[in-house]
Amino acid sequence: MNVDHLKKLLDGVQRGKVPVEKALQELKHLPYEEIDCATIDHHRHLRQGAPETIFGAGKTAAQVVSIMKRMQAQKNNILVTRLDKEKVPPIKRVFRRAHYYPQSRVLTLLNHPVKITGKGTILVVCAGTSDIPVAEEAILTARILGNRVEHLYDVGIAGIHRLMSQRERLSAASVLVVIAGMEGALPSVVGGLVDRPVIAVPTSVGYGSHFGGITALLAMLNSCASGVTVVNIDNGYGAAFAASQINRV
Amino acid sequence: MNVDHLKKLLDGVQRGKVPVEKALQELKHLPYEEIDCATIDHHRHLRQGAPETIFGAGKTAAQVVSIMKRMQAQKNNILVTRLDKEKVPPIKRVFRRAHYYPQSRVLTLLNHPVKITGKGTILVVCAGTSDIPVAEEAILTARILGNRVEHLYDVGIAGIHRLMSQRERLSAASVLVVIAGMEGALPSVVGGLVDRPVIAVPTSVGYGSHFGGITALLAMLNSCASGVTVVNIDNGYGAAFAASQINRV
Amino acid sequence: MNVDHLKKLLDGVQRGKVPVEKALQELKHLPYEEIDCATIDHHRHLRQGAPETIFGAGKTAAQVVSIMKRMQAQKNNILVTRLDKEKVPPIKRVFRRAHYYPQSRVLTLLNHPVKITGKGTILVVCAGTSDIPVAEEAILTARILGNRVEHLYDVGIAGIHRLMSQRERLSAASVLVVIAGMEGALPSVVGGLVDRPVIAVPTSVGYGSHFGGITALLAMLNSCASGVTVVNIDNGYGAAFAASQINRV
Amino acid sequence: MNVDHLKKLLDGVQRGKVPVEKALQELKHLPYEEIDCATIDHHRHLRQGAPETIFGAGKTAAQVVSIMKRMQAQKNNILVTRLDKEKVPPIKRVFRRAHYYPQSRVLTLLNHPVKITGKGTILVVCAGTSDIPVAEEAILTARILGNRVEHLYDVGIAGIHRLMSQRERLSAASVLVVIAGMEGALPSVVGGLVDRPVIAVPTSVGYGSHFGGITALLAMLNSCASGVTVVNIDNGYGAAFAASQINRV
Amino acid sequence: MNVDHLKKLLDGVQRGKVPVEKALQELKHLPYEEIDCATIDHHRHLRQGAPETIFGAGKTAAQVVSIMKRMQAQKNNILVTRLDKEKVPPIKRVFRRAHYYPQSRVLTLLNHPVKITGKGTILVVCAGTSDIPVAEEAILTARILGNRVEHLYDVGIAGIHRLMSQRERLSAASVLVVIAGMEGALPSVVGGLVDRPVIAVPTSVGYGSHFGGITALLAMLNSCASGVTVVNIDNGYGAAFAASQINRV
Amino acid sequence: MNVDHLKKLLDGVQRGKVPVEKALQELKHLPYEEIDCATIDHHRHLRQGAPETIFGAGKTAAQVVSIMKRMQAQKNNILVTRLDKEKVPPIKRVFRRAHYYPQSRVLTLLNHPVKITGKGTILVVCAGTSDIPVAEEAILTARILGNRVEHLYDVGIAGIHRLMSQRERLSAASVLVVIAGMEGALPSVVGGLVDRPVIAVPTSVGYGSHFGGITALLAMLNSCASGVTVVNIDNGYGAAFAASQINRV
Amino acid sequence: MNVDHLKKLLDGVQRGKVPVEKALQELKHLPYEEIDCATIDHHRHLRQGAPETIFGAGKTAAQVVSIMKRMQAQKNNILVTRLDKEKVPPIKRVFRRAHYYPQSRVLTLLNHPVKITGKGTILVVCAGTSDIPVAEEAILTARILGNRVEHLYDVGIAGIHRLMSQRERLSAASVLVVIAGMEGALPSVVGGLVDRPVIAVPTSVGYGSHFGGITALLAMLNSCASGVTVVNIDNGYGAAFAASQINRV
Amino acid sequence: MNVDHLKKLLDGVQRGKVPVEKALQELKHLPYEEIDCATIDHHRHLRQGAPETIFGAGKTAAQVVSIMKRMQAQKNNILVTRLDKEKVPPIKRVFRRAHYYPQSRVLTLLNHPVKITGKGTILVVCAGTSDIPVAEEAILTARILGNRVEHLYDVGIAGIHRLMSQRERLSAASVLVVIAGMEGALPSVVGGLVDRPVIAVPTSVGYGSHFGGITALLAMLNSCASGVTVVNIDNGYGAAFAASQINRV
Repeated sequence: MNVDHLKKLLDGVQRGKVPVEKALQELKHLPYEEIDCATIDHHRHLRQGAPETIFGAGKTAAQVVSIMKRMQAQKNNILVTRLDKEKVPPIKRVFRRAHYYPQSRVLTLLNHPVKITGKGTILVVCAGTSDIPVAEEAILTARILGNRVEHLYDVGIAGIHRLMSQRERLSAASVLVVIAGMEGALPSVVGGLVDRPVIAVPTSVGYGSHFGGITALLAMLNSCASGVTVVNIDNGYGAAFAASQINRV
Repeated sequence: MNVDHLKKLLDGVQRGKVPVEKALQELKHLPYEEIDCATIDHHRHLRQGAPETIFGAGKTAAQVVSIMKRMQAQKNNILVTRLDKEKVPPIKRVFRRAHYYPQSRVLTLLNHPVKITGKGTILVVCAGTSDIPVAEEAILTARILGNRVEHLYDVGIAGIHRLMSQRERLSAASVLVVIAGMEGALPSVVGGLVDRPVIAVPTSVGYGSHFGGITALLAMLNSCASGVTVVNIDNGYGAAFAASQINRV
Repeated sequence: MNVDHLKKLLDGVQRGKVPVEKALQELKHLPYEEIDCATIDHHRHLRQGAPETIFGAGKTAAQVVSIMKRMQAQKNNILVTRLDKEKVPPIKRVFRRAHYYPQSRVLTLLNHPVKITGKGTILVVCAGTSDIPVAEEAILTARILGNRVEHLYDVGIAGIHRLMSQRERLSAASVLVVIAGMEGALPSVVGGLVDRPVIAVPTSVGYGSHFGGITALLAMLNSCASGVTVVNIDNGYGAAFAASQINRV
Repeated sequence: MNVDHLKKLLDGVQRGKVPVEKALQELKHLPYEEIDCATIDHHRHLRQGAPETIFGAGKTAAQVVSIMKRMQAQKNNILVTRLDKEKVPPIKRVFRRAHYYPQSRVLTLLNHPVKITGKGTILVVCAGTSDIPVAEEAILTARILGNRVEHLYDVGIAGIHRLMSQRERLSAASVLVVIAGMEGALPSVVGGLVDRPVIAVPTSVGYGSHFGGITALLAMLNSCASGVTVVNIDNGYGAAFAASQINRV
Repeated sequence: MNVDHLKKLLDGVQRGKVPVEKALQELKHLPYEEIDCATIDHHRHLRQGAPETIFGAGKTAAQVVSIMKRMQAQKNNILVTRLDKEKVPPIKRVFRRAHYYPQSRVLTLLNHPVKITGKGTILVVCAGTSDIPVAEEAILTARILGNRVEHLYDVGIAGIHRLMSQRERLSAASVLVVIAGMEGALPSVVGGLVDRPVIAVPTSVGYGSHFGGITALLAMLNSCASGVTVVNIDNGYGAAFAASQINRV
Repeated sequence: MNVDHLKKLLDGVQRGKVPVEKALQELKHLPYEEIDCATIDHHRHLRQGAPETIFGAGKTAAQVVSIMKRMQAQKNNILVTRLDKEKVPPIKRVFRRAHYYPQSRVLTLLNHPVKITGKGTILVVCAGTSDIPVAEEAILTARILGNRVEHLYDVGIAGIHRLMSQRERLSAASVLVVIAGMEGALPSVVGGLVDRPVIAVPTSVGYGSHFGGITALLAMLNSCASGVTVVNIDNGYGAAFAASQINRV
Repeated sequence: MNVDHLKKLLDGVQRGKVPVEKALQELKHLPYEEIDCATIDHHRHLRQGAPETIFGAGKTAAQVVSIMKRMQAQKNNILVTRLDKEKVPPIKRVFRRAHYYPQSRVLTLLNHPVKITGKGTILVVCAGTSDIPVAEEAILTARILGNRVEHLYDVGIAGIHRLMSQRERLSAASVLVVIAGMEGALPSVVGGLVDRPVIAVPTSVGYGSHFGGITALLAMLNSCASGVTVVNIDNGYGAAFAASQINRV
Repeated sequence: MNVDHLKKLLDGVQRGKVPVEKALQELKHLPYEEIDCATIDHHRHLRQGAPETIFGAGKTAAQVVSIMKRMQAQKNNILVTRLDKEKVPPIKRVFRRAHYYPQSRVLTLLNHPVKITGKGTILVVCAGTSDIPVAEEAILTARILGNRVEHLYDVGIAGIHRLMSQRERLSAASVLVVIAGMEGALPSVVGGLVDRPVIAVPTSVGYGSHFGGITALLAMLNSCASGVTVVNIDNGYGAAFAASQINRV
């Protein structure tokens, strides 16, 4: 049931064509989602400029194309994450202007320029070269969501001076996304240096007792620096999404 | 080395009393923290009205009293978390105006009224009655940090209607701290309803395969709702601290 | 918003007192839960004879009394689970007819006789003497929910003959709740003998690598017998609740 | 020892050809299974219309063919689960009427039409597109076991309205199989909406701290909604088998 | 159904009083356990001299007394394991000749002298002083089961010479029970020195990442010495029981 | 240092050619292993008929060939376990009489007939068809070690009658190797039926929360049947080795 | 067998009183440990000034007294670790000069002044106030082993400046023992600042997903700083022992 | 800011060209890292002869080449670890003198002979043939860092005599790197035999409950031998780096 149908029903009541009891019954079973869905759409998807996102993992190229077509009709920008490269050619055959970033496995399709709506700058910081794919996913996500984004790479804590020399840039950001594998200590150090929200992203970079990112994840959850919150392993998208929401508060 | 000492050194150079080479040596080993410490203090602790926080677990009453005395000298408000009730009497003997909240094991000492500096409202939501102690820690922390705070209790997902009826209050908040034990699904549902940053706090409420909060923690890290970030189990303080930072972005 | 309010609104529209647009706005924000809540109450709590349940763990005696008073007003039967014995005296002071079962830590308050509404018999089977507290919680729950309940104790698989000699009783049940600690194999064997739904309950009975019930839980989840479903460790209540629902299908 | 042999033995005793003592010895060692086996067969496999099931994983195509041939002799319907697609051609060469479903890796061979023997409808609900393979295994299993089956796809909790709008269909089912990966919260929400048995199936859909389905599994075991029981990760077959048994209670 | 009943039934058939068909029906449902139970009793419990065992954990003193009385009637020796010392006085009030070993929490009641029926000697070896309680449980169990038992204490691998000097005693045993906490390496070293069955018992002696015995358990399961088998953490009883069976092969 | 060298040294002392002090020094540093090594060789490898074993995993074909050549010189039988099939052709090129068993990945080379030295029969029991590779490794190992070996396949507990009908064969064995994946309950049931040593082998057969065999392993360690000992997951070789040692006690 | 006995044997051979063959037999079974034991004693315990260590956990006061008496005879210094305070009075009654440190639960008994034999200084660094008990155990151990020891407390990474200002002291140490709970990142930062061996000690200080020190342990094992090695959780003694060995290389 | 810039600033102050206040501001924000970075470079990288190390995992051949070129400019020796063989050809095309070790996946490029700067000998000991790749990584690392290195292979504890016969070589080393998979007990035995620092390296060699090296890791962390410290699984590089630092103390 959509708003049109609802209006028609109320018109029927006003004109005496629909008895109150009958309307009462229908309204009592009013499909919830259609009203709510519209609300959600208004806030999240239908708002001019906001992108639609597709989680590419576990979907075939055909499925992705089919969803993109439906989105395309709304003239929104589109973001596809975790898209394996072998799925790209069939997608690009349909959407020629789509752009694929192999390192982060992100595909974007811009139907209109991204409008900067975030207040400040989101700074994406990562510890090592191997964390860059996750950083790139975060950067591309934050940009398409309408934020100014900067980054700082390879400032891991084993050479703490690299990080210390960048304190001014750290302090200038409104939100920080801090990405690290191995022992995952970078967000703690950054969290102690700045007075801004820090979103920590553990990565699966490591071996042995790193357990595919669990060690970094646990370290971040147990940070001795206040104000650090954490997302799932390798979840650059989620961190950027949260950072973007914070950048609009 | 503090700023006074630094000024004196530079004055000595200007007056020719300290040779450049000698100053160079001293500056090369300039104790970092004293400058930085001042910066941090300025941003975090020395600013009029900000509270000092003591993690009470694993400290004796005597240690807590001793740290509080040092803080008291700076006329700051003081927040002590995870303070077992048997440590309270010796502390209250010294600090009579201190207030203890037994459910959340929080002690506060207000040396001046808290000034509201947060922009919007932080909404603390919790799933069940047993999660209230963690919620209370979050509320007290957010308040003393200078935020308007509201709460919504007992809106767990098994009776989803309780939550749905409060959507307007959910949407009115600028940041949400969502607290849940058991299967920890509440932040996901809330995250799907609002377009604001959601900080999820897993609690140790549960039994058997709940593993003292691990199940709720994992569920929150794997939330299918974008924009949810997570803190450690039962960490109401940390969630409120992060929410307060976000409320100032 | 309740049904009365909804009727009044529609009457207003019919009489032309409430413009369609205004009603549309109000209906778009129709508080969901009040309609749904009534539905749920009708199906679960308000129906004559159904019990109200309180999870006693983590609640004070005062809290339990307060909730029981609210329930008492509806003349329902009341079931309190996981209630430590030191909380019982203050509760019994208020509710003298309440009955406490110390082994299973269950308290019941019958405001009217339980009416048998389940179709067949629920059979509660347990492997060893130490599993009996969990079995008792299941039995008491299933009974107050309106089911005929029988039990079979101490038929663990190390002496498989004890179980085999009871095959007729196993086959006569409409649903089986099978409870075991240690290696948790009993539900698999029972599941292979009967053609009825088997709900497996792992218990925390064991030591060392039993991990407080994890071993039994995992064994049950990996049962080679089809048709076995599992609940949380020591969750006799949950198993009986599910069995009762099945007994009404 | 089969019934014929048993009858012959008793005849011998009656005719005085077999002394009581000798029969006593033989009966004391009476092979249990042959009597029991017949019972089980009668209840499960030999009953007209019930399918035989083969767990395809870890079996070669030749082994599957060989088992199917034995089953074929009994004119039963046959269900093969977890059958990798490269094993299908050699099987279809022998059993031309076999049908393979690549998404769920299920193969069926119908030797006679499936007779609907289940009382009500089994509703298979899944959270996301990636959970569909498990859902399909559940649907095909429930159908060949003689049940009416419906499904509801892509109603995950991050957009709770999608689920809420389907409450009538949820309530109309006699048993629900609810499938979810990620944080695995869908069964809890469904369990709170309906008054029917809910069988929860965690899936391996997720990444990082999802641990191949463990997070969803734990969430389901710790559901705050009563009446939810759980099967192993990705075990669509097991859930459908249990649902089918419930649908016959 | 017991053997008497079975004989009577067969007599009835022989005398023509019980028709073959009727006997057939009864035999088809012949309660399995009563025949099997007798067999088991004959092999395990009813045999002159074999002890009855009670797992004392999770049983009240009253329950233990009640089971012991039933056993006492059969004049068997009795072994109670994991019996907390506060349960001993009420038991000794009834069974004055019972003997309690506080270190291993074992209680024995000898109704007749233990007859040595094991072929060789069982050697119980333990790594450190803290492992002695588990060793004592193994020794007492092995003795009451009718074996010659010797022991070797405090021969941990950090001072490998202590073990090496005892090689002759190691080689003289027919079965070895090797007990260790910490890194649990002793069974591997012993297994490399002897050509006899080695049963490894991990103990909960350790701290930190020892996880209550998991580390020792895993080390023993991964022993590079062939012929080492393992029992549960702290399971001295189980190891001795297995060793006793081996000593009779 | 070997025995010849030792004899020469003592001769030197006797003849006065080697001073006592010098011999004392040499003997104080007497290389331990050379004496011990001979002992071990005598007991394990050099004894006529005993096989040499090579753990094939992680070794190249060239390394295996090289070790086999050294062993061949001693005319021993040779057993290679966990040998991937692609390593077999280069080995068979050198050792033409070697025999490879692809299912269990075992290669044997018999330089002389195996002499039966075990007292009784080792019975290898397995739960399902998928456990057969592990069973075959156990059977081949036990045979080459000089034991009579029988087997019983596909007697899993979901159809307990299959197992019950084989009780005579179970009781006839002197040692049992019981192999199971899934919930790993078979050894418990067998352990309750026989009075012989049972060595349990968990297999990696299963999925989801089976964790590659952990569930079966834990179940076996927590068996409620006395006398069950356990080896590592899929370790058919180790179980057979231990069984062979028991069969010689 | 000791050296005297060995000399006597060789004398007998030289004098012709002991035949070569007889000596050969005796030497072949030469008890290994007695020679080796002497070696170990020489290197570790008998050397003038080295302390004897007793692991106090799991030993009664009587056992500790009894071991101390044996050690006292050798006039060595004695170190007892993990000694609960209730065991101290009975020990001090016998050894009046013993000194007990309640925070670290260490007891020392100095029979002679400790002689400094370590080359450089061992620096014990810890992150927070709650880690001090572990630090104290390390300091007391390192001192009694003959090392110069300094310490640096409360220099956790959330306020990195505190640590940075102490770089000269960090660089001046020859070995560093770095102790931290929570996210355990301090050893990584220290390891990046110095060019000396760093021994990391995780502590059990933390809560929730800290798992009693596992998070800190994993973080340290995955340190991105080279040269960091790790000991067990809370193992201040072990770290100091290793540091002392390094300080003598 | 480098030293030149610092000197110029102080000169400006001395000459009165830069006001004290302005210099004060600049010094307060003195970029930390440039001073510190120089210190670190001096101690670690810029010192003549020390190698630069690249962690090859997760880097493309192009990235490795690019980093090596930058290093090459400083004429340092270069060590690349964990370099998969398919990345070697493009690297060797640019750096013809580079040498690749396929077993350990190490690549070295010597721009000048390695100068021995370590005091004693580092002994690398490993338990089995499969641990050799990790041992080789340790050996190559220790050598290029300027140490004398020896090794001892295949001395696992199941045949303890092999190790015992090498005690003189063990005692002659100044530091020992002890590598083992399976139950990981070798470092404990070695630690009990020598009075030198032992660095334990668990390897991923094993199967089943070995969990890719976790079992060996845990065993080493719980070693009953004092003085054993541990690095991450398969981390031969890290162990050698720490050993090299110790060899310079």
